[in-house]
Amino acid sequence: MSKFLSEKLRALTPYTPGEQPQDMKYIKLNTNESPFAPERNVVKAAARAAKRLNLYSDPECKKLVSRLAETYGVKNENIIVTNGSDEVLNFAFMAFCDSENGAAAPDISYGFYPVFAAVNGVPFTKIPLKDDFTIDIKDYLGLNKTIFIANPNAPTGFALTLDQIEQILESNKETVVVIDEAYVDFGASSAVKLIEKYDNLLVTMTFSKSRSLAGGRLGFGIASKEIIRDLNTIRYSTNPYNVNSMTLAAGLATLKNEKKVRKNCETIIKNREYTANALRNLGFYLTDSKANFIFAKSDKIGGEELYLKLKARGVLVRHFKLPRIKDFVRITIGTKKQMDILIKTVEEIL
Amino acid sequence: MSKFLSEKLRALTPYTPGEQPQDMKYIKLNTNESPFAPERNVVKAAARAAKRLNLYSDPECKKLVSRLAETYGVKNENIIVTNGSDEVLNFAFMAFCDSENGAAAPDISYGFYPVFAAVNGVPFTKIPLKDDFTIDIKDYLGLNKTIFIANPNAPTGFALTLDQIEQILESNKETVVVIDEAYVDFGASSAVKLIEKYDNLLVTMTFSKSRSLAGGRLGFGIASKEIIRDLNTIRYSTNPYNVNSMTLAAGLATLKNEKKVRKNCETIIKNREYTANALRNLGFYLTDSKANFIFAKSDKIGGEELYLKLKARGVLVRHFKLPRIKDFVRITIGTKKQMDILIKTVEEIL
Repeated sequence: MSKFLSEKLRALTPYTPGEQPQDMKYIKLNTNESPFAPERNVVKAAARAAKRLNLYSDPECKKLVSRLAETYGVKNENIIVTNGSDEVLNFAFMAFCDSENGAAAPDISYGFYPVFAAVNGVPFTKIPLKDDFTIDIKDYLGLNKTIFIANPNAPTGFALTLDQIEQILESNKETVVVIDEAYVDFGASSAVKLIEKYDNLLVTMTFSKSRSLAGGRLGFGIASKEIIRDLNTIRYSTNPYNVNSMTLAAGLATLKNEKKVRKNCETIIKNREYTANALRNLGFYLTDSKANFIFAKSDKIGGEELYLKLKARGVLVRHFKLPRIKDFVRITIGTKKQMDILIKTVEEIL
Repeated sequence: MSKFLSEKLRALTPYTPGEQPQDMKYIKLNTNESPFAPERNVVKAAARAAKRLNLYSDPECKKLVSRLAETYGVKNENIIVTNGSDEVLNFAFMAFCDSENGAAAPDISYGFYPVFAAVNGVPFTKIPLKDDFTIDIKDYLGLNKTIFIANPNAPTGFALTLDQIEQILESNKETVVVIDEAYVDFGASSAVKLIEKYDNLLVTMTFSKSRSLAGGRLGFGIASKEIIRDLNTIRYSTNPYNVNSMTLAAGLATLKNEKKVRKNCETIIKNREYTANALRNLGFYLTDSKANFIFAKSDKIGGEELYLKLKARGVLVRHFKLPRIKDFVRITIGTKKQMDILIKTVEEIL
């Protein structure tokens, strides 16, 4: 820390992203990436854009915004495009929260929410999950805070129904409710269809999971035009050229492959159920995950020990050193072949 | 504006980037891009990275950081890599300023500084340039504020000497002095060599101008390891995967072309002097620009009129509707051919 760092940030603990080893020697099941490489048309579109990198990217991201609007059945004015969905989440904290207007999210959930709150000086309320790790929506009714809910939740994988989300929206009309749908394509219902009905709803999404573009950094938000305008005010006040032109091109090309994307999601779902069954047969307890990961614990081995032993054998999963979930590991769902290696390695360890 | 927008942002006026028409019908001399397309090895490196976009980018940006450290003769710990240099500038406002510790910058300078201050709730002091648009360094001695100086300055193009920068650093040891070197490669002296001597110095740079990567969004900061650690705290608290993997690869490849980059800069400098002379011969007054643009006015035509008439004839330059500089246009230096068209078009208009 330098002597120049603002007093308000001196106690800040940054987010710790999952390990990203650069040597490729692991079967990488730790950061919920897609095992499917981007399609040829995506690579080609990015390469074509690379030839013109001397020119700035389009700050309005017009083509991508239009195509997203078409894909999701909304208008261009309902969409903001960002440098990963972390950026739109941070913008939401900046725009709709402040020292007097706090935020709330489930405890346990995406570990970045409390960090966004801290860096923005926003009071943050953690709402414990029930004992079975599901969300009790009664805890969110009439909260009078900006609410962040990942649906499905991470790392538990549990999903809320649209009816439950509507109850939360209905009872918090004076604050924004952010539904973080990073994992929605693997089995939950999207709340996008509710944005016309609820002007307090912001849905955030990413190209990192189902659309195989984690390394491209592409996220977006869908909401009323007023909310989108506020988020764009933040964008144009921090980094108007926030998405580079190769990623804009790759994103646009990806949206032409929606059938393939859905097929990939179906494969992941199949592999998820296959892996879950195999682990249950080995005595694991698993949450009912609707995401591209499973969350599993065994009476026979601690979460950290399993993580370390898998890592020593070349399989990388994620372990969180948090009291309530320390017995679990989170395992990204990859190809059938990867999952077979995982299952075999777990068997060996046990 | 939505009813949810935080009170503190309701008066915020975002930055207005230069026009980025997507139809390519203009000779584009308005946002200080390089007229030289990226080299083949850069395009190839980006395309190769595109094939692996399903995996996250390296949040530590290790390879690029190492190569930058080598290029600039500093250690890895002295470098932060960001999504354009706007991001590192915003991080500096976030880290080193707050409601009680204000920022200062010349008036006239990069129009984003006051916006960064406003979005972060930082009191901002504008220090007027002298009548001839040069900086009076006496105004910056013992200021006790975080100081942002673009060197060369934009849109005036005037550069400070290293001796002048040292005087400012020497007399502001309790605050950070940010030297924004976006345009340094076109004729000014870099302050990077001063970072060992001054722990209050942060130099920011970009790949957007001399290195032909405006569309890739790649910036960086060089400073003491403590300052870099603070900026990384902000980065890991807002967007740890802030630079996508195609841009990381393109940046790394670009650093292998330093000779070509220098040659391109020499060409721009030559074209700048050529254009400046031609416009002086047409009766224009020009500032002594050390950047990849010139700043020019004529008694015969107003700045806005010239901008509009050039635009109508297919040549895009930049005009700022600000009292002190409204008579000027800022013209990016492109190829000799582009500059000949500009000069000819100006002649026709006059």
